[in-house]
Amino acid sequence: MTENTITLENTAAAGRATNVVLGKNQYGKAEVRVVKVTRDTDRHEIEDLSVTSQLRGDFTAAHVDGDNGRVVPTDTQKNTVYGFAREGVGSPEQFLIRLADHFTGEFDWVTGGRWEAEQYAWERIATRAGTAHSAAEGHDHSFVRKGQEVRNAVVVKDGDTVQVISGLNGLTVLKSTQSGFVGYPKDRFTTLEETTERILATDVSARWRYSPAAVASGSVDFNRSYDDVRALLLEGFTEGYSYALQQTLFQMAQKVLDAHPEIEEVRFSTPNKHHFLVDLAPFGLDNPNEVFYAADRPYGLIEASFQRESISPDGNAWDGITGFC
Amino acid sequence: MTENTITLENTAAAGRATNVVLGKNQYGKAEVRVVKVTRDTDRHEIEDLSVTSQLRGDFTAAHVDGDNGRVVPTDTQKNTVYGFAREGVGSPEQFLIRLADHFTGEFDWVTGGRWEAEQYAWERIATRAGTAHSAAEGHDHSFVRKGQEVRNAVVVKDGDTVQVISGLNGLTVLKSTQSGFVGYPKDRFTTLEETTERILATDVSARWRYSPAAVASGSVDFNRSYDDVRALLLEGFTEGYSYALQQTLFQMAQKVLDAHPEIEEVRFSTPNKHHFLVDLAPFGLDNPNEVFYAADRPYGLIEASFQRESISPDGNAWDGITGFC
Amino acid sequence: MTENTITLENTAAAGRATNVVLGKNQYGKAEVRVVKVTRDTDRHEIEDLSVTSQLRGDFTAAHVDGDNGRVVPTDTQKNTVYGFAREGVGSPEQFLIRLADHFTGEFDWVTGGRWEAEQYAWERIATRAGTAHSAAEGHDHSFVRKGQEVRNAVVVKDGDTVQVISGLNGLTVLKSTQSGFVGYPKDRFTTLEETTERILATDVSARWRYSPAAVASGSVDFNRSYDDVRALLLEGFTEGYSYALQQTLFQMAQKVLDAHPEIEEVRFSTPNKHHFLVDLAPFGLDNPNEVFYAADRPYGLIEASFQRESISPDGNAWDGITGFC
Amino acid sequence: MTENTITLENTAAAGRATNVVLGKNQYGKAEVRVVKVTRDTDRHEIEDLSVTSQLRGDFTAAHVDGDNGRVVPTDTQKNTVYGFAREGVGSPEQFLIRLADHFTGEFDWVTGGRWEAEQYAWERIATRAGTAHSAAEGHDHSFVRKGQEVRNAVVVKDGDTVQVISGLNGLTVLKSTQSGFVGYPKDRFTTLEETTERILATDVSARWRYSPAAVASGSVDFNRSYDDVRALLLEGFTEGYSYALQQTLFQMAQKVLDAHPEIEEVRFSTPNKHHFLVDLAPFGLDNPNEVFYAADRPYGLIEASFQRESISPDGNAWDGITGFC
Repeated sequence: MTENTITLENTAAAGRATNVVLGKNQYGKAEVRVVKVTRDTDRHEIEDLSVTSQLRGDFTAAHVDGDNGRVVPTDTQKNTVYGFAREGVGSPEQFLIRLADHFTGEFDWVTGGRWEAEQYAWERIATRAGTAHSAAEGHDHSFVRKGQEVRNAVVVKDGDTVQVISGLNGLTVLKSTQSGFVGYPKDRFTTLEETTERILATDVSARWRYSPAAVASGSVDFNRSYDDVRALLLEGFTEGYSYALQQTLFQMAQKVLDAHPEIEEVRFSTPNKHHFLVDLAPFGLDNPNEVFYAADRPYGLIEASFQRESISPDGNAWDGITGFC
Repeated sequence: MTENTITLENTAAAGRATNVVLGKNQYGKAEVRVVKVTRDTDRHEIEDLSVTSQLRGDFTAAHVDGDNGRVVPTDTQKNTVYGFAREGVGSPEQFLIRLADHFTGEFDWVTGGRWEAEQYAWERIATRAGTAHSAAEGHDHSFVRKGQEVRNAVVVKDGDTVQVISGLNGLTVLKSTQSGFVGYPKDRFTTLEETTERILATDVSARWRYSPAAVASGSVDFNRSYDDVRALLLEGFTEGYSYALQQTLFQMAQKVLDAHPEIEEVRFSTPNKHHFLVDLAPFGLDNPNEVFYAADRPYGLIEASFQRESISPDGNAWDGITGFC
Repeated sequence: MTENTITLENTAAAGRATNVVLGKNQYGKAEVRVVKVTRDTDRHEIEDLSVTSQLRGDFTAAHVDGDNGRVVPTDTQKNTVYGFAREGVGSPEQFLIRLADHFTGEFDWVTGGRWEAEQYAWERIATRAGTAHSAAEGHDHSFVRKGQEVRNAVVVKDGDTVQVISGLNGLTVLKSTQSGFVGYPKDRFTTLEETTERILATDVSARWRYSPAAVASGSVDFNRSYDDVRALLLEGFTEGYSYALQQTLFQMAQKVLDAHPEIEEVRFSTPNKHHFLVDLAPFGLDNPNEVFYAADRPYGLIEASFQRESISPDGNAWDGITGFC
Repeated sequence: MTENTITLENTAAAGRATNVVLGKNQYGKAEVRVVKVTRDTDRHEIEDLSVTSQLRGDFTAAHVDGDNGRVVPTDTQKNTVYGFAREGVGSPEQFLIRLADHFTGEFDWVTGGRWEAEQYAWERIATRAGTAHSAAEGHDHSFVRKGQEVRNAVVVKDGDTVQVISGLNGLTVLKSTQSGFVGYPKDRFTTLEETTERILATDVSARWRYSPAAVASGSVDFNRSYDDVRALLLEGFTEGYSYALQQTLFQMAQKVLDAHPEIEEVRFSTPNKHHFLVDLAPFGLDNPNEVFYAADRPYGLIEASFQRESISPDGNAWDGITGFC
């Protein structure tokens, strides 16, 4: 966020014991739900997003004096989202960049901001053989929400620099074998037993930051990148024996960075969703890794960033993204 | 639930102003998460459920005197779920029936009960061409949670009668055209305008009750029925022009009842998820049904039951299922 | 709900294999958030509710033919809630009764319905000594939401009969001693050990049904009853040694029925929120009932109804209330 | 988090197209629910927390080679939380500092970490006149959860520096008058109308960072500070006319910084919870600021930091706290 180091010495502050300075700040409208239907032909397309717009700049007067002369209303930010959707979305990243350029161009005191979106995937309902629409093609205007992960994107503009971080969350995966955990240090509080055979399960939350130069060049196809990164993350999860979730994450990131030169770093925030083998011995039963109790809380939590050796500065791009820093 | 009309006139109640009677009651363990891995071969299978077990019978002594002589602990009910999972799940319906038979057989004062499960679907991760596992077959032991709807099942046993209600929730569907709402009555509080072109969207929550006779005969393949009912519900949603969500639900139920003689009734509890056309005129833009605001609350709520002309008594089968009665 | 046993034999149904009958059904607008500020003086009052209105009657034509001639729009139901709030709320029960009378009076095919509300409590911010408002009185127009339980009410009208069920949920209580669980039956699956000293904790969800005669007489002060029932439930929870949650619930209900002749029955749906004593022995520490792990899932679930010996018929009053039947 | 700029050039990485560097990372156990009962006398005390422990240091080997030789298991971290609770909690801040000192002292490669807690408040059940416990004193061992805000604390240790950030969330407040919004810039997308009379409502989420020097001196009474800051935030909210939520936040922060020299900065992340005046004119009714629709989404979102003129470096103290930077 913007840091305004201007000291507040105005009427309102007069007589106060302490001189208070406005630090980082931003404001806007959160979770603007917009559904765009493209209906140029009978075969409709849907784009379904929740957009948050937050402006940065010098908003000292609003905080100190209640002077809103520079406060572009959050309602206007919402309206702008809907107005811009009239010309299509394309990808959440492109849409947010358009918003960023608009607000910083329209209002000269808006020096930057942060725009975020979640996108919800829909697929065509697969009608059955013998119906009007073929099974493979799916229905023209009837859709079912895809479930699984939610795609997200963050665009941070600061002066002329535009940072783009794409990501996903809620992609729940599980390996029913080929995972273990051994060789860790023991102390007074250690009761965990080593195992070479366990279930490994997590909800993948991943974010990847694009090279600002690649973004500026306009050469990135964000939708294609997204689909491929998602596939690589899943593929990386499946491969080999997992000695630790940390190691599996490294393997997943390696695949992404190998294949996508436009991406500079990949970050994860992933729970280790414990599946405890149930002790069935008291009931006279064995349990050869077949019956598990899936625990909710507490859970392991592994966070890590994997980067190319030399990357561009991230500035404040990651600010406000929970659990990835 | 069981209704115990035994009047409570014991030491504990002595001196009380009011004679209090224990009415319907049941108790048990809720949300027992069990994951069963079948690993007879290298190609594993996963079954992932949350099971709730509730017993009914004469538990007056526990309520009145704090005498737990008949209270099979909820902890024991949980253990039993895990113990039974050792021999596999099969389908949630079959698994719950096994639990029902066990508890009513094991403890003679347990005259019935209610067992409920949610099941979470997993699919094999579709690895890509050139990897060890073919894309079509998917991975042997790496899975991704399917998202979309959650399958559920309720088994109610009362004496010798076993009722089975299967269902799903969270199947979010949308038609981007072929829906309207006209011809409704107007009064002083009516401001809604008629439309012949709107988005129709809902989260399908559906439950269907099997004929107790079909259940008793053991002829029902609950997994096959489930898959087919799900497909029919989606198919019914896609077809034709919708004059009202009510009418579309009828069409969906008709398909199910036509194809599944073992099912006696289908019930729905479905929100009308409003998608309001945004007025872009103040911004100098038109909006030919392209840009919508997806509202959360309030929402329309349509509940209806569709049945065969002649059905067996449902007893207390629907008790405790919210929003379907 | 209304059961329409009219067989559907119309054009739409022609050619269908199965004759489908519309069973119970209702529809309306859910979760209408209304905040009413009473500002006759500088000392404002707030009423904050979420209201759901659902109509019952003969809506066969809408389901079968898509004929909406009898479908009072859910939007109109929403508008009516706001319009009626203009004259104040009073109590959620009274407000819902007014809505019930309006819809059944205004539209002759609406033979009944179900109206539900949640109410969120606010308290005046307790400003401190020396400020404009005294600590005891609280601020005139600044409020903080009270947290704790949410109050709720359901009004079911069927012809001339009006049933009122009031309740609360989310009142979380805990006894750190004076609770145990012993004397239960043991079987092959029992591993639980008996204890005479444990934590007893639950989220109280309670509902109580008023005598329809008392409701019809207009003599019930619902706000006063609510406050007193809430206090009695808490008081009942505190008293004595608990041999089982079932017994404690009985004690709580007894207090309510003793003191409130206008109430005919009290129902509970209460989790047994397990607090497991942590085994600290591996770390060389004792644990004399001091350190507990508060588990989320699974949990015990106790549901019970307590009634006067002779009560009026409840009709369909409890339909649609989860977990209390 | 720790940044390990060590390049990964080991067997595992050999043959990879891209040299991948491990960036910031941390791991641990999240949401360890611990309830501590202090029962030295018959008058019990409860402390109820959810604790997250995350370690930082050089964990490259685990990520690259799957070598867990330095990975203190998350299970051990959980056990340590329970073990430490045996000697009491005191305040969440003190408890987390004890954990931080333990882990960095016990394992020399653990150079720091992040410990976080939420604390849930309980109050004694206020029994009524004539019962064993007086109304004013409350019950000895029966408690009701307080609701309202959740207290939180974060301790970040990096080498010898200990940063403490305390906070709260979910404190929902509302002013029914003395709030307006005028004087903002207008553009093509502006449709909002100015108003000098509106409802101002927000869920206060606030965090305040203590001076590391004050923390190191051991002079801070975190529980007393918490209670007083909470009271000052509420008091600041009530006072004067609000020209913008931004201005009200400034006023709240000013009060805290005036009274608490041990606190260096206060940050807020506060929704502007819109209460829209309902247009009742179509129904022939006026609406003099009495009936409002409380909207969920979208909402305004105001984030700001207020600081003393000269403050100590915050290092990475704020990393991982969503929405405050």
